[in-house]
Amino acid sequence: MFGAVEAGGTKFVCAVGTEEGELVDVRELPTRAPGETLPLVADYFRAYDLQALGVGSFGPVDLAKGSPTFGMLTSTPKLEWRGTNICRTLAQELGVPTFVLTDVGAAALGEVMRGGHGHLESCLYITVGTGIGAALFFHGEIFSGVAHPEMGHIAVRRAPNDTFQGACPSHTDCLEGLASGTAIRERWGVPGDQLPVDHEAWPIEAHYLADGVVNFIYTLYPERMILGGGIMRQPRLLGLVRENVIQRLNGYHVPQPITAIDEYLVLPRLGPLSGVYGALDWAIRQYRRRLLVPGK
Amino acid sequence: MFGAVEAGGTKFVCAVGTEEGELVDVRELPTRAPGETLPLVADYFRAYDLQALGVGSFGPVDLAKGSPTFGMLTSTPKLEWRGTNICRTLAQELGVPTFVLTDVGAAALGEVMRGGHGHLESCLYITVGTGIGAALFFHGEIFSGVAHPEMGHIAVRRAPNDTFQGACPSHTDCLEGLASGTAIRERWGVPGDQLPVDHEAWPIEAHYLADGVVNFIYTLYPERMILGGGIMRQPRLLGLVRENVIQRLNGYHVPQPITAIDEYLVLPRLGPLSGVYGALDWAIRQYRRRLLVPGK
Repeated sequence: MFGAVEAGGTKFVCAVGTEEGELVDVRELPTRAPGETLPLVADYFRAYDLQALGVGSFGPVDLAKGSPTFGMLTSTPKLEWRGTNICRTLAQELGVPTFVLTDVGAAALGEVMRGGHGHLESCLYITVGTGIGAALFFHGEIFSGVAHPEMGHIAVRRAPNDTFQGACPSHTDCLEGLASGTAIRERWGVPGDQLPVDHEAWPIEAHYLADGVVNFIYTLYPERMILGGGIMRQPRLLGLVRENVIQRLNGYHVPQPITAIDEYLVLPRLGPLSGVYGALDWAIRQYRRRLLVPGK
Repeated sequence: MFGAVEAGGTKFVCAVGTEEGELVDVRELPTRAPGETLPLVADYFRAYDLQALGVGSFGPVDLAKGSPTFGMLTSTPKLEWRGTNICRTLAQELGVPTFVLTDVGAAALGEVMRGGHGHLESCLYITVGTGIGAALFFHGEIFSGVAHPEMGHIAVRRAPNDTFQGACPSHTDCLEGLASGTAIRERWGVPGDQLPVDHEAWPIEAHYLADGVVNFIYTLYPERMILGGGIMRQPRLLGLVRENVIQRLNGYHVPQPITAIDEYLVLPRLGPLSGVYGALDWAIRQYRRRLLVPGK
């Protein structure tokens, strides 16, 4: 058996699965202080004989290779979690090898491996929730440079007549600052799920998300793009984004899979389980890699 | 011996080098019509016993794996070159295995392998000339998704008070549309090399390039970034871009190599030879790969 955790800001989704990647049990635990939540997570897993555990974690989390604080939550706005190393704590509690990746990296991996999207060489998963994040699945790996990407913080063009200043504490009007759930709530005074389908918020939202999607296409050319997160539950939004993306690309350097935009730019298929499926897959593949390199 | 070509819009730089990557001869030929230029290129190489030839090509060039028109110039503004397959033509003329990559990909590879930058796991080379392009060196490869990146066409924030519409025929005000040499010439009526060092053009140019650099950092986190191309010859520009980048990042998720911005964001070190060094390296590494996979 392998364990999987999707560590989120409001809940921890814990699951146990087989080496074939099938989930056999799932449990949700509320996110409170680390000293309260992590023992409950450990208790859940103690009932199983685990070979390894995968953790898809909210962030920012230090994933720099060789860093002495690898796996530690750094400048997270959840102050009581700053400095916590979820992965290391659970490894110590449970005595099993534990492997961490970002929450959005886990969602990307889960969708690619278990979402029924067919064989993909590359896939970008974008989540539009309280914040905006993205992870690139690329040839069996989650892409990372000297740090894991923070793609939500790219610059985009301002939508015509949008005078909202922007909600990102670091960059003001980056993509996350203009199009996250936080930005929507600050701009319109209510959360996105309370805005009607014909509200002017949605074409503005689509403008920003389309700029993000186009930027990621021209930079990464993934084989598929998945738009997840709470904001994408607005049923009209995906269609608006698709329209905007095709218009922006304007036919310039648009190869095969992207022209079929309705199959190219899609919603996640595993719903709330993308992340935990991905964390399970991560545990299995990292465990196998360790077996291949004795002593590491 | 190995051959290398940097195929550009105004000249073809041809070179011959050793398997150790040293250049032994370089020749420049003017870019005229394909039927005029390519025979001269072939003639140059016929004097040598080549094992393979590498071509760093202007574009856009079809580099989609398995495409029937692989290596062909597609929608290039140089109309008489549209539909030309430089790589295939030279392979047929010379009877040697010939390998193509983008011009900016070749420059990236040349700088990383021969530019004295030390060992790099990843490096983004950005060229700011008539157009804007970029290529990511990543773990020994030039990064590519379902197509080679067209990073010059990302969206950026408009500089305050810049009312220039934009010069990109496809996207109007993308990065290339606002910050390429073409954009500078259209905005100010003269080419960049005729604008004085204290001209208001440079802070505007730095604004756009910094947005591009920041977007590439948050998306790719390369270990180093190199800014090349004719526009970067303005001596004041690099410093302005560095200042802007640090200001934009505002300390959010900025790990080790990026904080030392003067060593992180640098000019190319091989001058006009980056591309031809890279094409030579490409010929050698692709030739060796083929040797490893008989029958391919």
